[in-house]
Amino acid sequence: MEECLQIERQGVPFQNHVTDCVGTGRLGLALQKEYQEHLELVQKTIHFRYIRGHGLFCRDVGIYRECSLDGRTVPFYNFTYLDRIFDSYLKNGLRPFLELGFMPEEMASGKQTIFYWNGNVTPPADDEKWQELIRQMLLHCIERYGLEEVRQWPVEVWNEPNIGFWTGGLEGYCQLYESSARVIKEIDSEIQVGGPAICGVDVEHWMTSFFEFCSQNHVPLDFVTRHCYTADSPRDAGHYVYHTMRDPRVMIEELKETREIMARYPLTKDLPLHITEFNSSYTPLCPVHDSVFNAGYIARILSEAGEYADSYSYWTFSDVFEESDVPKAPFAGGFGLIALNGIKKPTFHTFRFFSEAGKELLYRDEQMIVTADKERYVILAWSFYDPRDGASAPDAYVKEMNLPAWTERAFFTEEWVNEVFGNPEQAWYDMGMPRSLTEKQVSVLKSMAEPSCSHGIIENKDGSYKIRVQVSGNEILKIEIVPRLLPKQEYLGFDRNEFFGLRDN
Amino acid sequence: MEECLQIERQGVPFQNHVTDCVGTGRLGLALQKEYQEHLELVQKTIHFRYIRGHGLFCRDVGIYRECSLDGRTVPFYNFTYLDRIFDSYLKNGLRPFLELGFMPEEMASGKQTIFYWNGNVTPPADDEKWQELIRQMLLHCIERYGLEEVRQWPVEVWNEPNIGFWTGGLEGYCQLYESSARVIKEIDSEIQVGGPAICGVDVEHWMTSFFEFCSQNHVPLDFVTRHCYTADSPRDAGHYVYHTMRDPRVMIEELKETREIMARYPLTKDLPLHITEFNSSYTPLCPVHDSVFNAGYIARILSEAGEYADSYSYWTFSDVFEESDVPKAPFAGGFGLIALNGIKKPTFHTFRFFSEAGKELLYRDEQMIVTADKERYVILAWSFYDPRDGASAPDAYVKEMNLPAWTERAFFTEEWVNEVFGNPEQAWYDMGMPRSLTEKQVSVLKSMAEPSCSHGIIENKDGSYKIRVQVSGNEILKIEIVPRLLPKQEYLGFDRNEFFGLRDN
Amino acid sequence: MEECLQIERQGVPFQNHVTDCVGTGRLGLALQKEYQEHLELVQKTIHFRYIRGHGLFCRDVGIYRECSLDGRTVPFYNFTYLDRIFDSYLKNGLRPFLELGFMPEEMASGKQTIFYWNGNVTPPADDEKWQELIRQMLLHCIERYGLEEVRQWPVEVWNEPNIGFWTGGLEGYCQLYESSARVIKEIDSEIQVGGPAICGVDVEHWMTSFFEFCSQNHVPLDFVTRHCYTADSPRDAGHYVYHTMRDPRVMIEELKETREIMARYPLTKDLPLHITEFNSSYTPLCPVHDSVFNAGYIARILSEAGEYADSYSYWTFSDVFEESDVPKAPFAGGFGLIALNGIKKPTFHTFRFFSEAGKELLYRDEQMIVTADKERYVILAWSFYDPRDGASAPDAYVKEMNLPAWTERAFFTEEWVNEVFGNPEQAWYDMGMPRSLTEKQVSVLKSMAEPSCSHGIIENKDGSYKIRVQVSGNEILKIEIVPRLLPKQEYLGFDRNEFFGLRDN
Amino acid sequence: MEECLQIERQGVPFQNHVTDCVGTGRLGLALQKEYQEHLELVQKTIHFRYIRGHGLFCRDVGIYRECSLDGRTVPFYNFTYLDRIFDSYLKNGLRPFLELGFMPEEMASGKQTIFYWNGNVTPPADDEKWQELIRQMLLHCIERYGLEEVRQWPVEVWNEPNIGFWTGGLEGYCQLYESSARVIKEIDSEIQVGGPAICGVDVEHWMTSFFEFCSQNHVPLDFVTRHCYTADSPRDAGHYVYHTMRDPRVMIEELKETREIMARYPLTKDLPLHITEFNSSYTPLCPVHDSVFNAGYIARILSEAGEYADSYSYWTFSDVFEESDVPKAPFAGGFGLIALNGIKKPTFHTFRFFSEAGKELLYRDEQMIVTADKERYVILAWSFYDPRDGASAPDAYVKEMNLPAWTERAFFTEEWVNEVFGNPEQAWYDMGMPRSLTEKQVSVLKSMAEPSCSHGIIENKDGSYKIRVQVSGNEILKIEIVPRLLPKQEYLGFDRNEFFGLRDN
Repeated sequence: MEECLQIERQGVPFQNHVTDCVGTGRLGLALQKEYQEHLELVQKTIHFRYIRGHGLFCRDVGIYRECSLDGRTVPFYNFTYLDRIFDSYLKNGLRPFLELGFMPEEMASGKQTIFYWNGNVTPPADDEKWQELIRQMLLHCIERYGLEEVRQWPVEVWNEPNIGFWTGGLEGYCQLYESSARVIKEIDSEIQVGGPAICGVDVEHWMTSFFEFCSQNHVPLDFVTRHCYTADSPRDAGHYVYHTMRDPRVMIEELKETREIMARYPLTKDLPLHITEFNSSYTPLCPVHDSVFNAGYIARILSEAGEYADSYSYWTFSDVFEESDVPKAPFAGGFGLIALNGIKKPTFHTFRFFSEAGKELLYRDEQMIVTADKERYVILAWSFYDPRDGASAPDAYVKEMNLPAWTERAFFTEEWVNEVFGNPEQAWYDMGMPRSLTEKQVSVLKSMAEPSCSHGIIENKDGSYKIRVQVSGNEILKIEIVPRLLPKQEYLGFDRNEFFGLRDN
Repeated sequence: MEECLQIERQGVPFQNHVTDCVGTGRLGLALQKEYQEHLELVQKTIHFRYIRGHGLFCRDVGIYRECSLDGRTVPFYNFTYLDRIFDSYLKNGLRPFLELGFMPEEMASGKQTIFYWNGNVTPPADDEKWQELIRQMLLHCIERYGLEEVRQWPVEVWNEPNIGFWTGGLEGYCQLYESSARVIKEIDSEIQVGGPAICGVDVEHWMTSFFEFCSQNHVPLDFVTRHCYTADSPRDAGHYVYHTMRDPRVMIEELKETREIMARYPLTKDLPLHITEFNSSYTPLCPVHDSVFNAGYIARILSEAGEYADSYSYWTFSDVFEESDVPKAPFAGGFGLIALNGIKKPTFHTFRFFSEAGKELLYRDEQMIVTADKERYVILAWSFYDPRDGASAPDAYVKEMNLPAWTERAFFTEEWVNEVFGNPEQAWYDMGMPRSLTEKQVSVLKSMAEPSCSHGIIENKDGSYKIRVQVSGNEILKIEIVPRLLPKQEYLGFDRNEFFGLRDN
Repeated sequence: MEECLQIERQGVPFQNHVTDCVGTGRLGLALQKEYQEHLELVQKTIHFRYIRGHGLFCRDVGIYRECSLDGRTVPFYNFTYLDRIFDSYLKNGLRPFLELGFMPEEMASGKQTIFYWNGNVTPPADDEKWQELIRQMLLHCIERYGLEEVRQWPVEVWNEPNIGFWTGGLEGYCQLYESSARVIKEIDSEIQVGGPAICGVDVEHWMTSFFEFCSQNHVPLDFVTRHCYTADSPRDAGHYVYHTMRDPRVMIEELKETREIMARYPLTKDLPLHITEFNSSYTPLCPVHDSVFNAGYIARILSEAGEYADSYSYWTFSDVFEESDVPKAPFAGGFGLIALNGIKKPTFHTFRFFSEAGKELLYRDEQMIVTADKERYVILAWSFYDPRDGASAPDAYVKEMNLPAWTERAFFTEEWVNEVFGNPEQAWYDMGMPRSLTEKQVSVLKSMAEPSCSHGIIENKDGSYKIRVQVSGNEILKIEIVPRLLPKQEYLGFDRNEFFGLRDN
Repeated sequence: MEECLQIERQGVPFQNHVTDCVGTGRLGLALQKEYQEHLELVQKTIHFRYIRGHGLFCRDVGIYRECSLDGRTVPFYNFTYLDRIFDSYLKNGLRPFLELGFMPEEMASGKQTIFYWNGNVTPPADDEKWQELIRQMLLHCIERYGLEEVRQWPVEVWNEPNIGFWTGGLEGYCQLYESSARVIKEIDSEIQVGGPAICGVDVEHWMTSFFEFCSQNHVPLDFVTRHCYTADSPRDAGHYVYHTMRDPRVMIEELKETREIMARYPLTKDLPLHITEFNSSYTPLCPVHDSVFNAGYIARILSEAGEYADSYSYWTFSDVFEESDVPKAPFAGGFGLIALNGIKKPTFHTFRFFSEAGKELLYRDEQMIVTADKERYVILAWSFYDPRDGASAPDAYVKEMNLPAWTERAFFTEEWVNEVFGNPEQAWYDMGMPRSLTEKQVSVLKSMAEPSCSHGIIENKDGSYKIRVQVSGNEILKIEIVPRLLPKQEYLGFDRNEFFGLRDN
């Protein structure tokens, strides 16, 4: 028999930055109708505050062009699409977390590209053109949205320069960062700029070199950014990529290590740390993203990441995404919280659950947090395991607890996502994996994407509400408890026993 | 152990008129925004074809007025609101099933009224005024909607003249019917007219007298109408009315008896029979309407009523309803399929489930029907019992069956509504019965109003899909089975076992 | 030749309260879909801040009922509809300007009623019931919307007690006011209460008596209210009421006189004055409301009323209105800014134009105001005359002016409403006055309801923009002037002369 | 003085195919939100029946890919985006007029491309792959939309093979056509296939060669297609292209000539002729498209083109278009009927006006048509001229006419588009040509994009309605005349003279 937890009413602040930022496919996709529909769905429910993605300076957003005039080459800055994109973010309650990149072909020093959509990853051929591009872009945003607004848009320089996203090497990155940061501060000293935006390769070397560079050269640095993916090496198989995941605590350790490196330098020791991308797998062809396993796995990360990072941006909110070409099926391993056709994946609910957590943390272990607001408890519990080769699930996580009671009775609601409920990829598989969905199939899958939910009354026993939490296999659970209301006016004649019956004969 | 049913592929036509007609609160309520929202919700899902309600000629619709001009009294026909109401029905895919009544005060012979909204129930003081009113109303509709359209609107004369809705008695009704029918046929002989619209009191006397009257006087009669409610005598208690229900087969018996009476007369023996109102309880203050008991109880009726009646109009689609005053709470015993704030009640799902049944009936017993279309099975099962005084539920209904298989595998979906799932009145009770709902509470109740749904694959075993159906307590269940699709193009590299895993360490 | 006005850049604050409050048909109508559509249309464009109407305590809103329990009579407070109504206001950016009334039948001392919808105009039979009703209603609103919100809802006691809306006389009103005001302040001393809500009959007597009563008895009074209609005695004619209008300056005089009376008492001399109703005609059957004459006439009032009153609530925003029965035609003389079917009347544009005026007043005469914001001029001009018996319009109002220029060029837009443009009642008349409109007719009338609009460039001449304003007949005109922008980037190759041409042959 | 036309009531059928088809930017753009908004706007008003554009097989729609499996190259057909695009068309009441092209890079024989978005214009390297692509695409559409539906989608082979859109020459085109046509007919012999889709270069040679090829080889040909643009040679100037236009009758002549060539061959003499693209200028950088000149110019073409062609597809409905890169400004010379931000251009109204013409043609000359339906006249008149170098407009076109009267009075509406009204490009110029529009600027431009409209009553004079039509400069005019209605019920007390007045004092 498990012991019964005695939860105290007084907790500590829950460092919960789950809604601070979310990732997106390249900005040009924000012109799409389906993208916008997914964005509205996410914002109506989870309410992210910032959005970050690649491709600001890529060809399809169309900002930078050069044209020829009387023999001269003249730059032309076209903000037609940028306006449409940023208008849509702001209208949905989101601010851009700007990422400067990739290189406009017209000013690139090379031809190397990345992704289906050919982001150019080479340094600028002419640093002044790069600076002018940043200046024009920011001045335009300030004119359109106001300086007060744009000051709240952090600017990150480039993306993962430590791997194939950048051919300029560490030194080249420092140079790019410096010229970017300087031109930004010239425009307005309060606009925040940061880097080095690296992924988890050769981290210590990059971080220390970058911090030393900034320190020695008095280069402005307002925040530090990096990425965290917790997958092992991939195995390619046809249209899929498979890999096992490392323990989610690995990500927490990476955050601590980053903080430790930052702590070594006066410049960085007190700076914000933004995880501008994170997820389990780093490829948009890995089915883990569609699974309920991922929902529990990410929950473990969300339960603690806020202790060490100021934001952590899930990569990405939607399967409207093309880094590895147009998605080939409704479920194809994309990063999104939302699959094509607006179907919520299990991890969508993980984010929603955490977005609804209380502001105080009363208890936390490896599979559960207990949080509270005034007269409201929110308990989240999760479970995940490796089912390969028919492995059966480990023992269920079961916990009993006593929560301080406010009133005679409380009302609770429960929502579960697991193999059976809230698992649309499984339903789609059972259907026979249609690549093209009919309207009816979409409707069935949307139903199957909702959690199972239930409710009830808890009695105050000796000043406590006794709660039993149980999760097993791959599962997430949310329990919310509020006082049962007392009717203001009597319900005259109310007698539940008489509500219905059959004639006795 | 139960025997296993062997279902044949070939069935009989399922006489299913579940979507032919639905009842509404008085027509004046159709001006309300919330009414229209409920109507859209119902029509998006259940797709009724006709709608019938009281109050066409009542004061708030405003059709009939008299004004004084140079000492004369001049009638004035005002269709401002009628247009708005009928436009909204047609836009939602509904045709009016017209009910002539109640009496405009200006032409009434008395002051007696019914309901909170004071419908005048007395005969016309001047029969010509009554006929002129019908004529003007129909001519207006023909002008606005076209004769072809209006010919498809049946016209029923008055409502329940055999009880307190009519002070004119049987003879008076016959007279009213005759003058109404004659003026209708004068306008266009193809417009269909019917009656006597009685409830289940003194039925044989009224039916036979009315049929004889029409036969002897050659009064046009195109269809027969009556109402069926299956509740026992009521007990008033404060703001509630309680009563027990009779066996739902009682309603089927009433339909048979009505057909039997109709069969006695050449005039009526082949006429359509429309049940222009039916429900369990006949009061909008009876909590049975909000219950999952009702969902199962009504299912039993829907499973067979179509064998004897050409339509049966559930009274009513929405709790936007005022016969017993403005509703006092989100759940107050109203007739509606939809409670205030757009929350679906359990019986909503009963109607949706029957609207999705197959066109062929393969099997039917007291708690289940098995239906089919081409490559689609739909099984509906239900259960209901009297829980008073803590009575426990009878044994579950359990049935195994073999359905002829089309393909190697089939995909099935299941939806349950029972005490735990799809039962928002219970959730509202658990909340503490708030009379005013916050937005968040509405959102919780809407979640709790959805059925639990699940899915899976069935293997073809020796040419059959083996299905096990189980329902118990108060419950309804829908199972839908379709062929599992075969992917058109190979899923390269697809290996479900590799979808996710954890590093072994 | 007219002189040319030399407008100075520096003006005085324009006392413009045009959007502070608007009138509505009885609150129960707010449940209607068409009402809500008109409300959205008005709020999307004109953005009123408060809304005031009758009927809070009338039968159809359903707040007050009594039921019998064990022989006792028990009051029941039903806020089902009130929530829906106030939710809709707040969602549309409007706060209620509460009017307490009329008397619930259950607590009325008599049977006298007013209007088609039978508002009971008698004093309460039991003052404690009245106080309890106010208490319950306000406590409910505070619980639902928060005290901070409800403190911003002014409470006016009754409506026009000096004429047929009240059988209790002046003394009875003072008593009602006192008991209302005291219970309000008991709930929260910051909720604002006011009266006497009189119309323009016997004003001085009522005002002075009421102010003296409050002063002597230390009855709380936070603001003063009255109504202003400027029509002469009416002449009834069938379904219409006709009357001539007094000079609109009469209303300005009435405001001054009211201020003068208020100035006599220490209690009232610094209080806000709210005109809780105003219009030209006071009957909803007077075609003046549909006319462009009214648009110019009301413009004259709006140009100056804010100097003397803190708000002036046009009676009413919509023709969804039933005081004189259901409207009989799309244009029937209703008070609304918007006619049935969502068609804007000329006076709608008057309100929109004033809502777009600048915050500074640079010039004002009998037919024009010139206003400004930073780098924006807004000029409004109007004209109205009596066309009866074929009288021709007086000479046009023509004014030239020099406005201080900001830049080399300015961009101006003009909008006219007159007999020809923005005059849908005339179009409806020309159509043949259909009582029921087809969709196509509604669409034509909506087109005809829009102003004629045009635009152009003004050159800076010696530091001024020279503007010529001309209005005549019944007409309103809005001119808005802003700097012509200077393109940020060159338009390469732009040559307007080459935009198009035909081959010369 | 002009003579007065005597119009006869009996006309000839007006060969009006204005709504049969419209052009679109490349299909991949249909994924965009703004594209879809423009499509809805156009379809709500003009109701086109077919839509045709390039890019079906281009990279961004993503249909054709090859992947490597166990050393083999395997084709993969991805219909994810195609479904979304065609679903959106059908939902908006449009059928695809399919254009096969351009060449997927994976099966192309060369690298030459066209446009900003790099359409590959080389023949297939492997004809079987090409045929298989067509087969898979059509089979997919048949599966998703049904054979009956897809049989109504004409299939055109390639685009303008006679110029830079095709490197295969005439012979290569014939080969491509044959292999395409044969595979289509293999799938279903009722699917219609056609070509040669040429523009107006070397027409006779291409037409005759192609027809002879099909005739001699018994290649299926169900319809003939070509394009018509009436601009002279272009002059490039920075971001613009300028050219003069030829007389619009040139296009009518081209249609006749095409018919004449078709008449020479038994195979083609009775085939439908579809003009799958037409416009004045053929570049999306020519400001003529934004002008009111174009509105009148295109009107002349629409007045007669239907006599010779079975459809003529205006290139294009929207400025969401990227052949010459992302549009650089709200008005930049794009082809669209609708400019960015949903602003209607003058030519939008030309199309709307023609879509509202009557089915009978009563009169036609160079600047006017008079059309009729039962009890409805629609008159369209237009005027256009070359304003270069300050040339003033020629004399106005003025015409008086007598139209047979139906009733005592008629109601007419007029709508004008000219330099002053319905000319948003001019308003934008006057504003100062902002490249990024604020919400308020968009709203002003939308107002300025509407025609001026007016209305009135016409009296029957000796059996005729006398109408005077006048247009001048660059202008289009629509007059619609319907009977003035006779009220069904008397308007009691109606006296227009008494509607309003001022007190005499």
